[in-house]
Amino acid sequence: MSNAAIPVALIGGGRIGQVHASNILANPRLSLRYVVDIDEKAAKAWAAKAPNCEGVTSLDPVLNDASVKAIVVCTPTAAHPEIITKAAKAGKAIMCEKPISLITSEIDECYAQAAKYGVPLLCGYQRRHDPSFVKLHEAVTSGAIGQVQIVKTISRDNPVPTIAYLKISGRIFHDCGSHDIDLCRWITGEDPYEVYTAASAFNPAIKELNDWDTVLITLKFPSGVIASIDLSRKAAYGYDQRIEVLGNAGMAQAENRQPTTTIVSTDKGLLTDPFCWSFPQRYVEAYARELDHFVDVIQGKVAPKLSHDDARKVAIIAEAAEESCMKGAPVKIDYGNSLKN
Amino acid sequence: MSNAAIPVALIGGGRIGQVHASNILANPRLSLRYVVDIDEKAAKAWAAKAPNCEGVTSLDPVLNDASVKAIVVCTPTAAHPEIITKAAKAGKAIMCEKPISLITSEIDECYAQAAKYGVPLLCGYQRRHDPSFVKLHEAVTSGAIGQVQIVKTISRDNPVPTIAYLKISGRIFHDCGSHDIDLCRWITGEDPYEVYTAASAFNPAIKELNDWDTVLITLKFPSGVIASIDLSRKAAYGYDQRIEVLGNAGMAQAENRQPTTTIVSTDKGLLTDPFCWSFPQRYVEAYARELDHFVDVIQGKVAPKLSHDDARKVAIIAEAAEESCMKGAPVKIDYGNSLKN
Amino acid sequence: MSNAAIPVALIGGGRIGQVHASNILANPRLSLRYVVDIDEKAAKAWAAKAPNCEGVTSLDPVLNDASVKAIVVCTPTAAHPEIITKAAKAGKAIMCEKPISLITSEIDECYAQAAKYGVPLLCGYQRRHDPSFVKLHEAVTSGAIGQVQIVKTISRDNPVPTIAYLKISGRIFHDCGSHDIDLCRWITGEDPYEVYTAASAFNPAIKELNDWDTVLITLKFPSGVIASIDLSRKAAYGYDQRIEVLGNAGMAQAENRQPTTTIVSTDKGLLTDPFCWSFPQRYVEAYARELDHFVDVIQGKVAPKLSHDDARKVAIIAEAAEESCMKGAPVKIDYGNSLKN
Amino acid sequence: MSNAAIPVALIGGGRIGQVHASNILANPRLSLRYVVDIDEKAAKAWAAKAPNCEGVTSLDPVLNDASVKAIVVCTPTAAHPEIITKAAKAGKAIMCEKPISLITSEIDECYAQAAKYGVPLLCGYQRRHDPSFVKLHEAVTSGAIGQVQIVKTISRDNPVPTIAYLKISGRIFHDCGSHDIDLCRWITGEDPYEVYTAASAFNPAIKELNDWDTVLITLKFPSGVIASIDLSRKAAYGYDQRIEVLGNAGMAQAENRQPTTTIVSTDKGLLTDPFCWSFPQRYVEAYARELDHFVDVIQGKVAPKLSHDDARKVAIIAEAAEESCMKGAPVKIDYGNSLKN
Repeated sequence: MSNAAIPVALIGGGRIGQVHASNILANPRLSLRYVVDIDEKAAKAWAAKAPNCEGVTSLDPVLNDASVKAIVVCTPTAAHPEIITKAAKAGKAIMCEKPISLITSEIDECYAQAAKYGVPLLCGYQRRHDPSFVKLHEAVTSGAIGQVQIVKTISRDNPVPTIAYLKISGRIFHDCGSHDIDLCRWITGEDPYEVYTAASAFNPAIKELNDWDTVLITLKFPSGVIASIDLSRKAAYGYDQRIEVLGNAGMAQAENRQPTTTIVSTDKGLLTDPFCWSFPQRYVEAYARELDHFVDVIQGKVAPKLSHDDARKVAIIAEAAEESCMKGAPVKIDYGNSLKN
Repeated sequence: MSNAAIPVALIGGGRIGQVHASNILANPRLSLRYVVDIDEKAAKAWAAKAPNCEGVTSLDPVLNDASVKAIVVCTPTAAHPEIITKAAKAGKAIMCEKPISLITSEIDECYAQAAKYGVPLLCGYQRRHDPSFVKLHEAVTSGAIGQVQIVKTISRDNPVPTIAYLKISGRIFHDCGSHDIDLCRWITGEDPYEVYTAASAFNPAIKELNDWDTVLITLKFPSGVIASIDLSRKAAYGYDQRIEVLGNAGMAQAENRQPTTTIVSTDKGLLTDPFCWSFPQRYVEAYARELDHFVDVIQGKVAPKLSHDDARKVAIIAEAAEESCMKGAPVKIDYGNSLKN
Repeated sequence: MSNAAIPVALIGGGRIGQVHASNILANPRLSLRYVVDIDEKAAKAWAAKAPNCEGVTSLDPVLNDASVKAIVVCTPTAAHPEIITKAAKAGKAIMCEKPISLITSEIDECYAQAAKYGVPLLCGYQRRHDPSFVKLHEAVTSGAIGQVQIVKTISRDNPVPTIAYLKISGRIFHDCGSHDIDLCRWITGEDPYEVYTAASAFNPAIKELNDWDTVLITLKFPSGVIASIDLSRKAAYGYDQRIEVLGNAGMAQAENRQPTTTIVSTDKGLLTDPFCWSFPQRYVEAYARELDHFVDVIQGKVAPKLSHDDARKVAIIAEAAEESCMKGAPVKIDYGNSLKN
Repeated sequence: MSNAAIPVALIGGGRIGQVHASNILANPRLSLRYVVDIDEKAAKAWAAKAPNCEGVTSLDPVLNDASVKAIVVCTPTAAHPEIITKAAKAGKAIMCEKPISLITSEIDECYAQAAKYGVPLLCGYQRRHDPSFVKLHEAVTSGAIGQVQIVKTISRDNPVPTIAYLKISGRIFHDCGSHDIDLCRWITGEDPYEVYTAASAFNPAIKELNDWDTVLITLKFPSGVIASIDLSRKAAYGYDQRIEVLGNAGMAQAENRQPTTTIVSTDKGLLTDPFCWSFPQRYVEAYARELDHFVDVIQGKVAPKLSHDDARKVAIIAEAAEESCMKGAPVKIDYGNSLKN
């Protein structure tokens, strides 16, 4: 046994953790050494799938094992800052699921720690790695559709998350909207200066949490571009994730995906599959490519696609969108002192 | 020769007038007797295509010809009220292109005149007759997608209208947005209580007219439904007219149409037609069916699909959307005294 | 009243006759003067829809009315030669539904009569006028897909024709297959030299007529091109009419059409319309354009798109395809003495 | 390290071998122990990607290593029988790329050896594991489209294989057509009794090999079902793999796949991706699922989806299709003594 795979630890074995665990196992550039989870059984079960991998319930063995070069953080958001701080100090490269934190100052502090110890910190907005979105981004930035005028994204979840998850989700703006906010900034290359939100809670259980399940966010950008973000906690017809960009010379769209291409046609009509069930199916390549990007970052080949500035601005905009929703009025977005990226 | 075709006059031979003229000629239930236009040559040219049809430059011959039972009004909006008032007095059934007027009190007065003389007045929002939109409406109202949560419409024009037209168009909210506002009320069966608009003018010539070419309207409805209307004066890839409705059990969409179904596939990809060029192509069946509906109304078989209440509320909402755009803030919608329909 | 519309008579008021009657009425370049049908009631009913139109049961009034310049023949095939011969002698331009005749010598005689009296004879293969097929033809002949290698057509009928119709239809090869044979020659610009047919009769009523409902024809062309024609009497999911051409640089396809663009998506999948119901819906523009082409031919602007050579070769190939089916072996196609076109 | 992964050896590291190698590495139920290839460098390079894996140039170490429970055979077809015979004797479970052999008696002998030593032998027709084809198969066999009447498959290759490969490919009928023949039998549940083939060689290099690049095969089945197989060595627009089944109550189709869902729309039209580049992209899930099926077979959970009878009949039909092509006439298919499955 002698490959150059980078030893890595997975922190958090929940639903997104399992996605990353599978991808680490399938990626010959990485070697899974630890799975850390508060549920020892789960940790050991995943660890058993890889050679030379341990399932543990504490971060310490990882921090103390100098052979481990990188960690992938998939815990609930609240635990991110402490893990990042400790891992940075221990010299591990860090990929952390989005958002780094709901609080801008904590995001800044995490990046400061990473910078202090010279370790890369990659925030996991996987949609930037989705082949369809990447192709749309290329079409837009290449000028194929002319001057951008409208950007519209749709993120409608499937299945409805559990109430247990929703309670720790950071509410719909940070949990779902942050992805779309990131996409809007990435596509336009601009920071919005104002946000207006209309939102409803049709699901009584969600209403009770003072959260919303149906959201329409409007963003205004300095160039005149207008963006619209459509969020829902339920898409009965499958996970619904789309982008559409209107330019003065054309339009670019990324449509949904279906598991099969099979069409059954009868006198009732033409029936095809519901869309992919949920995020692991929809973003199967995106997660794999994100991980590959992380390896490139670890090896110093490229800078992280998502910068400190990106991570903090997404959080600031999500916060402003929620504020607009509560006030029922547009909110100017205050980015504070800008960062040098 | 002895058919029961209803003698009808066309008032206004511009681009939409020509659409209606062709449909009148092709509809065996109607017989075109007059084409009225200030351009005598144009009036006579159209008249020459039908048997027993005269091209004239004044409304008077139509009003004085008792055999004429109905008129189709396709003049600029400003001329509508006078024509409607005179035609009602002369006992003619009236189909009038939208909007009846930009001013709510004038709309009310037109309907009052029609009521006084007992003639039907049908306002021409042709999209309610489009087969795809009708089918979407049926799907939504049948409960096929459950409780409605989000309604989104797109109306992007092609080609960019002339500046001459834009000057008399009543601006984008009344000219384009009114159609979509009507669709949102029709689909939801509700009146929105608040509107917020974000708008830009990328085209300098449009900016100079204090008009906008890129608009995103958000409407809030009492049930919690949120609607989004996306307007643009330019869709380089063909006339873009779509509706999407999200319910808690599914989604209904009406997509664009392409002139042909031909696909040319090479190593560059799969290439299909741009969408239908403009409204006469896109709404070819809608205009024909609207006219047929008008004949049904004349014959007393059905009530007009679009009521006085519909026509005035659309105008009120369009006005509020424009007000929101100028203020940069949401605007509560005041419908005044409600009508009995 | 004074338009230059060409006075025309419709011969045969059956299902295809009604399609042409509607198009004549809607076409300002034509004026319907007679509807001839053995069913006097039907003839008079159609005639009543047009000004100055008579419903009659004999061809004679048409032949004797010098003002009538053209006829459109929609009778059963067996009656074509006599009508064409008489009309040619009377100097009328002739559009005749396909096929002119099932017997090659009769086809030749009809064209000879038309030539003798100097009247145009247009055989009605409407698919050459379908916008999607025309666009496919342009793509192929422009070289966009390189050297043609495979041509495949599908013609699956809906609804299943009545047994009464099937009895006089000339069987599936002449009735349905002739259209596809014409398309294959038109697209390739070549005459096939050999044909092989496999056919089944799943429907017992069709089997009893010694006809088939399911046919696969293979044609070999001198250049090496291979064509496949797929015929069926039943497409439960709507009228199915497609063409696909493979070239060494790409592929051109013309797909089916659906009445609406509406999509209803639920957890069962995405449901869209069945395809257009039948030929009048599918070929609505094709029939209108064919008629317009006929007017151009009458006015001497263009030669008929379908020549004598085309009409006779289609009949010869259809006959050979049926022969192959009966023999269970490939059949060399003998075109006899070639024509000068 | 202690997982229950089954130790496996890969025999042949060419293009299909690499597909299987990746899937073995990504499948936690399997553990790659040997890569055998005549090219030592290639063997060692692949072996380096897995822990505890050796790259060797001879089969012997595999046969002699009792810990190895299974082999995946990806060598040129000619080498299959010897490898299978030796591996069976050594007690290894065998998955062998299609076809087992071009010669029916050799196929029979291979299965006889496997039976003698009690090892499973799975022939790798991966398309039976493709999710879209599986879904189509379910729709057809569930009766959703009624009585099957027509089955059509398309297999058009991309890129054009190298001449070196074509020389050892067994010609287009065995190399490509065998997949489609297998699909037709699988979908219909019947054995065809007659085959007719039309074929051309447009590519001069292929013509020189006495092979064909463009093939249309017609199969007749006892029930009256007709099947059509369309083979081409070149699909410039991407790997083209489709199935269409017509029943008397509907149609089932499996369409091609595109790498992304991105649409770029301009005044030139709507442009989407070419189809997936080639078989590794198109059948990515199919290969993974096939391997999983092999593990199930090894573990005795299921019988191989593809039986001895399937493997030999596919070879017999492919042979008859080639014979028909050379004769230019239909050929009755002789299956010899039938097998007990």
